[in-house]
Amino acid sequence: MAASRWRLAVRCDDLVDLGIGQPDDSLLPRELLGELAAAALAKSTSSRLQYAPEEGAESLREALADFLTLHYGRLVKADELVMTSGASHALDLVLAWYTRPGDAVAVEAPTYFLGLHVLRQRGVRLVPVPVDEHGIDADRLEEVLQRHHPRLLYLIPTFQNPTGMTLTSERRARVAALSAEYGCIVVADEVYQLTASPDRVPETMRAHAGGNVMSLGSFSKILAPGIRLGWIECAASCVQTLRKDGVLRSGGGVSPMTGIIIESALRNGVQEQLLSAFRAAYDRRRRHALDSLDRLLPVEISYRRPAGGYYVWLQLPSSLDMRAVHAEAARHGVGFRPGPLFSIDGSFEDCLRLCFAYYDEDRLAVGIGRLTDILRSRLSA
Amino acid sequence: MAASRWRLAVRCDDLVDLGIGQPDDSLLPRELLGELAAAALAKSTSSRLQYAPEEGAESLREALADFLTLHYGRLVKADELVMTSGASHALDLVLAWYTRPGDAVAVEAPTYFLGLHVLRQRGVRLVPVPVDEHGIDADRLEEVLQRHHPRLLYLIPTFQNPTGMTLTSERRARVAALSAEYGCIVVADEVYQLTASPDRVPETMRAHAGGNVMSLGSFSKILAPGIRLGWIECAASCVQTLRKDGVLRSGGGVSPMTGIIIESALRNGVQEQLLSAFRAAYDRRRRHALDSLDRLLPVEISYRRPAGGYYVWLQLPSSLDMRAVHAEAARHGVGFRPGPLFSIDGSFEDCLRLCFAYYDEDRLAVGIGRLTDILRSRLSA
Repeated sequence: MAASRWRLAVRCDDLVDLGIGQPDDSLLPRELLGELAAAALAKSTSSRLQYAPEEGAESLREALADFLTLHYGRLVKADELVMTSGASHALDLVLAWYTRPGDAVAVEAPTYFLGLHVLRQRGVRLVPVPVDEHGIDADRLEEVLQRHHPRLLYLIPTFQNPTGMTLTSERRARVAALSAEYGCIVVADEVYQLTASPDRVPETMRAHAGGNVMSLGSFSKILAPGIRLGWIECAASCVQTLRKDGVLRSGGGVSPMTGIIIESALRNGVQEQLLSAFRAAYDRRRRHALDSLDRLLPVEISYRRPAGGYYVWLQLPSSLDMRAVHAEAARHGVGFRPGPLFSIDGSFEDCLRLCFAYYDEDRLAVGIGRLTDILRSRLSA
Repeated sequence: MAASRWRLAVRCDDLVDLGIGQPDDSLLPRELLGELAAAALAKSTSSRLQYAPEEGAESLREALADFLTLHYGRLVKADELVMTSGASHALDLVLAWYTRPGDAVAVEAPTYFLGLHVLRQRGVRLVPVPVDEHGIDADRLEEVLQRHHPRLLYLIPTFQNPTGMTLTSERRARVAALSAEYGCIVVADEVYQLTASPDRVPETMRAHAGGNVMSLGSFSKILAPGIRLGWIECAASCVQTLRKDGVLRSGGGVSPMTGIIIESALRNGVQEQLLSAFRAAYDRRRRHALDSLDRLLPVEISYRRPAGGYYVWLQLPSSLDMRAVHAEAARHGVGFRPGPLFSIDGSFEDCLRLCFAYYDEDRLAVGIGRLTDILRSRLSA
């Protein structure tokens, strides 16, 4: 009863929105970025503030290649990198150059909802492939490859959004072999890859499938979303194709000024330190959230434990009306993303996504407490 | 003879490339930007480094609206602005949301060559409209509107690229009336508008045609190309359409960090000071280049004096072989952009574009001296 009255007393400005999928403000190195900018711009040359090469300044791509080589545990080459305005711009750029409207594109079901917007905007035909606890279902993928001949597979192999699951090494090898066999390009959205230490994640998709994979990465999860800098790692021949892009040509690549700042963070060890801090925070928050869920979730609600990333995906009994749960949660100061958002056909009505990266442990506890209270009371009603 | 020997002695690293269309390094406020970044990020809030609203942070758009209101001499509203990664991204965004492949789009002949790449990439059908000394030919535009029903007109009204000509106020009013009558959106690429003081340029296209115009602006010519920040000024309803863009939604607008820095430059008077410095430099260089051309160009070569901007467009006698002139110029250490680059059909073979914004007066004199020497010797051969 006390809990119930407490919930009713929640005010809007006390909302814990577990739907938000981003790092929280306290993790963002705002002042440090300012100091980095001052030092890096003072040391740089003014020519770096001109229009840059379409794929990004060579020295920036070299610094990024060194950083990725260290953290991916395999050689990443500067001439296999294209700088982008984050992973969504990267996806759009690949779609612009490697698909035509009407082409089939295979996507995980469920998948990142804003990625779906980018895909739909390019007019491609989306074909879903289910995801289980080991990542995308390779048998179903093969059926889709046989039947629909997709030009691309858009895949989030590590800490998948929204399920949190990671594609196993065995499946990665199978997906790689299948995509090569059927001539399907794998666009691996690997923005969560660096959020965990290398011993906790399988190797990136390019380690398995090489030239057939375009890997999308971003500084959004390991530095700040507002940086708007990401990259595509792909075959050097694909770099040569993507650099023909009209906007990249006319604009002279993406954000050369941001590139100067990030290059210095990569070279002087600041990105390395930040990476450790982000990983530690994400790890603490994930453990805390999963402990709370283990303790508080009604037994009727199941979920699979993500080994990292941002998200946990809950499966509710079909007896619960998701819209009603979502509305009651909002009234009681807790948010989440409903499952159908992540589907191309309104499915996953009995699922929801929680993000554990945005709030510290205290706020996570408040949010998860509120949500599990609501679910428990609805299940016992 | 001395001149001839001197030309032959030119080495590649002494190239004066009058084809380059950008401000020169010495005008770019590199260290100042670093100091601004440090101060602005220290004072800002970390939430500004998160994903931003799709159209850009409200306070940035307000600062930009105030700045444009002052310099355009009419009210510019924050809710009629969308921040973009420069004018080319702006053009691409408008094309994505307001055209379909196969739609007719009217363009000036000649026009900005990299704009043509962006247009072609979106699969639109380009219809040329000639430009004369008063800007786009309104009678020919009306014929094109009647016959091809273009969805958009892509127009560079002020200091046109490549001709340097400015659309007169009378023509602006006529273009506005025609575009309203035929339901054609005017995409006015006005990136050179702010490079001259307001008394030297007609009012922007939106002053004439209001809601029917989308105006593209950029900090590339008044701060630094490597900033990669621009804007679209358009009806608030169009802002609501453009903000649905998948990449803007997923990425959270363009470059929030850059936005923090530029907002501070707009608010603390730094952009205002830089604007004066850029204008003074552009003006000096233009006068110097035109004086040199007046003095040195063979009488067979005609050109119209631009009142500002970056470019002057030379018309050569058809007896000259442009390819041979271009090759000889390159060998003798001077570059330019050949006319056909700016056309959709290889026309303007007897024209070339020079940019007077990139070099200081001494280098301009060297470059123009070399080019006019070559032209003179070929005409007298």
